[in-house]
Amino acid sequence: MLAGEFALIDTIRQRASGRAELQLGIGDDCSILQLPAGHELLTSTDLLLEGVHFRLDWTDLPSLGFKSVAVNVSDLAAMGGNPLALYLGVGLPADFSDAQLTGFLDGIFTGLTEYDLALAGGDTCRSRGGMMISVTVQGSVPKGQAILRSGASPGDDLWVSGTLGDSALALRTLGAGLPVSAFLAERHFRPSARLRLGTRLAEQQLATAMIDLSDGLSGDLRHLLKASETGARVEVARLPLSAEFNAALRADPGLLDLALCGGEDYELLFCAHPAKRAEIELLSQFLALPLRRIGGLTAETDLKFCLANGQAYQPQRAAFDHFRPGKDGSA
Amino acid sequence: MLAGEFALIDTIRQRASGRAELQLGIGDDCSILQLPAGHELLTSTDLLLEGVHFRLDWTDLPSLGFKSVAVNVSDLAAMGGNPLALYLGVGLPADFSDAQLTGFLDGIFTGLTEYDLALAGGDTCRSRGGMMISVTVQGSVPKGQAILRSGASPGDDLWVSGTLGDSALALRTLGAGLPVSAFLAERHFRPSARLRLGTRLAEQQLATAMIDLSDGLSGDLRHLLKASETGARVEVARLPLSAEFNAALRADPGLLDLALCGGEDYELLFCAHPAKRAEIELLSQFLALPLRRIGGLTAETDLKFCLANGQAYQPQRAAFDHFRPGKDGSA
Repeated sequence: MLAGEFALIDTIRQRASGRAELQLGIGDDCSILQLPAGHELLTSTDLLLEGVHFRLDWTDLPSLGFKSVAVNVSDLAAMGGNPLALYLGVGLPADFSDAQLTGFLDGIFTGLTEYDLALAGGDTCRSRGGMMISVTVQGSVPKGQAILRSGASPGDDLWVSGTLGDSALALRTLGAGLPVSAFLAERHFRPSARLRLGTRLAEQQLATAMIDLSDGLSGDLRHLLKASETGARVEVARLPLSAEFNAALRADPGLLDLALCGGEDYELLFCAHPAKRAEIELLSQFLALPLRRIGGLTAETDLKFCLANGQAYQPQRAAFDHFRPGKDGSA
Repeated sequence: MLAGEFALIDTIRQRASGRAELQLGIGDDCSILQLPAGHELLTSTDLLLEGVHFRLDWTDLPSLGFKSVAVNVSDLAAMGGNPLALYLGVGLPADFSDAQLTGFLDGIFTGLTEYDLALAGGDTCRSRGGMMISVTVQGSVPKGQAILRSGASPGDDLWVSGTLGDSALALRTLGAGLPVSAFLAERHFRPSARLRLGTRLAEQQLATAMIDLSDGLSGDLRHLLKASETGARVEVARLPLSAEFNAALRADPGLLDLALCGGEDYELLFCAHPAKRAEIELLSQFLALPLRRIGGLTAETDLKFCLANGQAYQPQRAAFDHFRPGKDGSA
């Protein structure tokens, strides 16, 4: 039996830690936040629904809580923002236990600590369907320094952080009823938001455009290209792939499309002038985070994937789209 | 068959109108907003779930869209804030039609226009349960001028806007399978957020504390009293009741508790020094909105309801609480 809504809010409020910018947190009709002088406000919101974005028989609840924060923070990272506050809405099924709720909140608070966010508000209620989670993150950026999708130019390099396709490979493996390794499970169930990378790219003014990879490289790159009115050529042989992904790829070459079109990588895809290559390599070392140059932007407004032999490659899967049913094993 | 997620986002983006403060709206990873100089940021978030907060066989979709905005704006009104931007998350059942979606969005945009808000972001996905709506509103207030729940003192007057209990009476009538009048339906399905009242009370520094009535007078007043560490005495005979509510009350005196404990009035409950009575009466005339003095704050930290003969009255229903099943006819 769940505690009442107000008791739950009290529990959350007691665990929520403050931040200097947060004048008033949970417990009134609104939060009150002061923006650092000379900064603009960044905001993004995400939904995570049981049966669409997650399955409770696949994920543990601390991981689900952590991921709910991380996917939202990833949007902030993609603008180069500094974290301020997060707002959490949760609809809980009638049979959700106090222990489950505690596990979920443990994950939420781990995420808040990891990304230095204050929990500044929320809403809780019973759900007659499955569990539903709504997260809204606020951050700040010095005026005019946010990295948009629209700033890229032909001739820019195209870079990506981390490795691609691990999360989609985990999902596909689980969908086939097979066990996944600890590495792949971590990549899918507890993704990292590349917040430090995003803020450094903004501070050092290294990137001309940026987006986070939630819907897959192909789909998200198309969003960036459309906003920037440019095209791109991606060298498939340069895609950063993990050792586990490469092993799976040797057994089934068709898996390549997971790296090109699979969702939920939560890596950052960014564009930069070629003069910045050395600085970006240094940043990669400083952050101990691989940054790989996978291609470049072109004046033609299309997207080309090229194999090592120069041949064009056409991936077979469209970008992850929640409204198209039965796609891609997306749970 | 619904359009894809990205097509839906495009449709919404085309209809979203801007505001000067909104540097960047829908279509990037985050929105970018500039706060007016010398202002603080106010934020509140709400969930509305099918089967918990609304039933699609009872509400029309434009009203549901409008109400989703209004209940969220009501929180902003309760702090005395000025509206800036709203973020919308929607999870849509597989059988939701394009016509239904258009109706719902019509209501959302009517609400945005009514309350002068920019739609600055959102998230859309398919829902495997019912329809779910998440709304987050941002506003601003001059530094230090937000009206909190915690500012009331013993001796303050207690005021409430509009009339009480109409929304709960509508819900109770519908729950009994009976038709509701246009007036009651409007009060339940298309509530007004008292935004102009809230901002005027803040500008004129008339209120010491304020809360909006979403969970019922009794429950919400207790929140305010707890935050202010005071008590209150409410004169039941002074409660503002509509002609329709009074007619129902004559037929069934037990309905009184709907005015005391029924949820979703979305009126503002506020405290003010007795020296402000004339100014508040003037504001009531200016806004053409009834403001009724229903009691006063006391040094004892309890809440007393008193009948015309001076006798204490104890309502029989606890505050609306989504986690307690089967309560109060809450759909």
